[in-house]
Amino acid sequence: MSEIAMTGAEALVKTLENAGVERCFTNPGTSEMHAVAAIGRAETMKATLCLFEGVATGAADGYARIAGKPACTLLHLGPGLANGLANLHNAKRARSPIVNIVGDHAVSHRTLDAPLASDIAGFAKPVSQWIKSADTADEVGQAAAEAVAASQNAPGGIATLILPADTAWNPSSTGPAAPIAPTPFAAPADSAVEAARAALAHGESAALLLSDPAMTGEALELAANIAAATGARLYCDTFVGLMARGVGRPFVRRLPYFAEAVEEELKGVRHLVLVSTKAPVAFFAYPGRRGELTPEGAEVVTLAAPGEDALAGLRALAAVVGKGPAPVRALPITPGLPSGPLDPMKVGAIVARHLPEGAIVSDEGATSGAGSFVHTAGAAPHDWLQLTGGSIGQGLPVGVGAATAAPDRKVVCLEGDGSAMYTIQSLWTAARENLDMTVVIFANRSYAILKIEMMRTGAQNPGPATLAMFDLSRPDIGFVDLARGLGVEAVSCETAEQFNSAFSGAMKRRGPFLIEAVMP
Amino acid sequence: MSEIAMTGAEALVKTLENAGVERCFTNPGTSEMHAVAAIGRAETMKATLCLFEGVATGAADGYARIAGKPACTLLHLGPGLANGLANLHNAKRARSPIVNIVGDHAVSHRTLDAPLASDIAGFAKPVSQWIKSADTADEVGQAAAEAVAASQNAPGGIATLILPADTAWNPSSTGPAAPIAPTPFAAPADSAVEAARAALAHGESAALLLSDPAMTGEALELAANIAAATGARLYCDTFVGLMARGVGRPFVRRLPYFAEAVEEELKGVRHLVLVSTKAPVAFFAYPGRRGELTPEGAEVVTLAAPGEDALAGLRALAAVVGKGPAPVRALPITPGLPSGPLDPMKVGAIVARHLPEGAIVSDEGATSGAGSFVHTAGAAPHDWLQLTGGSIGQGLPVGVGAATAAPDRKVVCLEGDGSAMYTIQSLWTAARENLDMTVVIFANRSYAILKIEMMRTGAQNPGPATLAMFDLSRPDIGFVDLARGLGVEAVSCETAEQFNSAFSGAMKRRGPFLIEAVMP
Repeated sequence: MSEIAMTGAEALVKTLENAGVERCFTNPGTSEMHAVAAIGRAETMKATLCLFEGVATGAADGYARIAGKPACTLLHLGPGLANGLANLHNAKRARSPIVNIVGDHAVSHRTLDAPLASDIAGFAKPVSQWIKSADTADEVGQAAAEAVAASQNAPGGIATLILPADTAWNPSSTGPAAPIAPTPFAAPADSAVEAARAALAHGESAALLLSDPAMTGEALELAANIAAATGARLYCDTFVGLMARGVGRPFVRRLPYFAEAVEEELKGVRHLVLVSTKAPVAFFAYPGRRGELTPEGAEVVTLAAPGEDALAGLRALAAVVGKGPAPVRALPITPGLPSGPLDPMKVGAIVARHLPEGAIVSDEGATSGAGSFVHTAGAAPHDWLQLTGGSIGQGLPVGVGAATAAPDRKVVCLEGDGSAMYTIQSLWTAARENLDMTVVIFANRSYAILKIEMMRTGAQNPGPATLAMFDLSRPDIGFVDLARGLGVEAVSCETAEQFNSAFSGAMKRRGPFLIEAVMP
Repeated sequence: MSEIAMTGAEALVKTLENAGVERCFTNPGTSEMHAVAAIGRAETMKATLCLFEGVATGAADGYARIAGKPACTLLHLGPGLANGLANLHNAKRARSPIVNIVGDHAVSHRTLDAPLASDIAGFAKPVSQWIKSADTADEVGQAAAEAVAASQNAPGGIATLILPADTAWNPSSTGPAAPIAPTPFAAPADSAVEAARAALAHGESAALLLSDPAMTGEALELAANIAAATGARLYCDTFVGLMARGVGRPFVRRLPYFAEAVEEELKGVRHLVLVSTKAPVAFFAYPGRRGELTPEGAEVVTLAAPGEDALAGLRALAAVVGKGPAPVRALPITPGLPSGPLDPMKVGAIVARHLPEGAIVSDEGATSGAGSFVHTAGAAPHDWLQLTGGSIGQGLPVGVGAATAAPDRKVVCLEGDGSAMYTIQSLWTAARENLDMTVVIFANRSYAILKIEMMRTGAQNPGPATLAMFDLSRPDIGFVDLARGLGVEAVSCETAEQFNSAFSGAMKRRGPFLIEAVMP
């Protein structure tokens, strides 16, 4: 009896496993049946089913931020990829490595323009740093190894591998490929280190501005020590993929969201040193306002550009700067216990009181989330994950991915009600996988940010028909009902007392739980 | 006191109104604030707020199919468009005219690579037949007039107008533009009509194959008369955007979904005449199977290619074919009243009994919807809208759009449970707008089609980990809870008696209602 040859799909999955990819977030279809079968028989790779592709791609982002390595997705042709693009945009901004496997029609079928045919590579291009179609079973192993490496090449991002159905079902004579090492990030030039040293020598008129991956671990410690030694201010971008915070962690000032507040914050900065980021710009343009937010005339020095080795740069800089006083670290602060009708600040105070050590917070609270960010500065040490690309609907999927990557850590999702409704299907996956994830919905029943932005952009005299486009009442969304419908236990709170009881209880139990925090 | 100049956004909206665009399906953001303000002050254009962009684009598709003219969408930059792409893919396949207005950063802000910056035109390209960025307020009126015309140019589809924020907020010195007439569809050549006549002269070994827009109105009547006069068979594509059906309408055989069934159905056809469609191909490829489904060696004649004037072609063909016997029309059939545990056939029989005259059915029932299609052949006259591009998540949004376009007609959505979860946010818009829309969820708690396709594609020995990827239980999705959470009254049924009571009641009342039909 002859040995049954490995299919292309099996060569693909084995290659991914060899390269350390352990998780596939998927919503598959007919063209992916052989890939599904291969994943179902895989040794180490596990699959997580999502009801919508935006959940799958956002979960892969959250997974990458916590695991520090890529998961893969398995998506159904161009439209399946399209449904995941918004969270791939966010992941790209977080520089999260993700390997998309996008099924396609068999190569012979592509020319027939069947209903699901589309320009898959065209959909993938705006978000991908690597795209390839593996058009034969013999090349899929090598292509998969390249994809895993490509997702981790500078600056880190999306590798999209297109998998025609016949590539998946045909026998592979080459079998799986060996892992390919990603290209190491280039270390900053000595001249960049020297320029940064010279800029920071100006003390308090100088500032370090950090972004991923310098907001955690050794890089964060080095940056804080450099700031302490030079007297420079220490900032991070408004939206960072992962920041380590809480008691004992170096205290970093986060740039505010609104452009005029950033300008105010950066007043007096004459020398700006960039670590793995670009000079700050406004999130949106406003009539008559500058978009570039670096103080006019200030010197801008790049220690490490995005995709350069920020850690190496910080090590070199720390060595030349020398040792100074101990950096400013967050002190333990337990906010008072609030009472009465809920508002975002009271929610934040209560979250800070009960957040367990090692928690992961996925923050898409928008206007309502700021209170929690402020209050948790002195909470137990935790990681904070933000909406990196501005495309709402990221928070719950990122929570799903983070909880999958770290089953022993509590995940807390802080979600605006409007944002939650983009990818509410995440709750079902949280229930199915019994993820240890507590979701707080800030139910202010409006796109509150847009009420503010309407004034800021100078659009005049909004009438009722305009205001209706920001209004999420009529009908109110019932998040307790939605959670129940998706298999997640939930409770609704209108007072601080109720919320304190619900949130502290959720921190003590395991498994998915949702708290609707109703507020004006 | 000088007159306040019109903004670019106002010039845009006024131009759209002049061109007959009456409805905007939107989920806006900061970059769209001036467009939102202008729509809020518009005279005839009304806005419908959607919680997710896939609802907005799908609703625009459903609106176009029923209204016969474009609605616009208003979407938030690249990611907002990205969330709507899957249903734009479906709309493109239905050849539905849609005008996308996609907000962008101000022109001066585009170079700054702010978090939400992306390649909007790149996202739009795979689904759009026209793309333009209106980079000044003075050009936006003309661009909007072009967009409306472009959406209706052959074959009908998506026109994407990119609207930078400063284009919207700056004063327009040119103001609104006059409507531009779409280019008339080209009439088929005389030679095509003659070739079709000659092909159909072979009688029962010949067949006419129809697609949009030949499945309704005069075109459908002409096609049926031509078939009757020549003895040719009369078919339509498996998935058609709109077909007029029910008692008294010409009876057209729909091509089956599975490739082998199409081959069986077309056995004996030696001459195939295409009306506004292409020769049939398999929806998916399967190992060892042909993708082209026209019988081998058969003659294929194109009377009207997609985008040619099918009605003109059918008129010319009818004139040369002459008058024959009366065409076959659907007879009134009232199925018996079933009892006991529900299944798709029982649901179909009950739907057929109670479907009111003039109803619009949005069918995304997948494996479960077939029973309803069969049984309603002899129901009261109605229009049937299908999943044209194979990207699930279309049915509920198309229902929202259809109900918006025809507030005096009952809309019935037949939805698979898996499909429903892609765009379940549609229910909230149905509640907010009090749309007269009854949703039937076929709750078989699996991606049932994939269980079938797993076998058909020959993927071997699926184990529990594979089968889990098709399973929608663990936890069961509670559609009554979901509907309640989104403001829609709902009921769950497990027997034919319960379903008959719920569905007949829903047909007699107005407003949104959901029925979960639980079945194996």
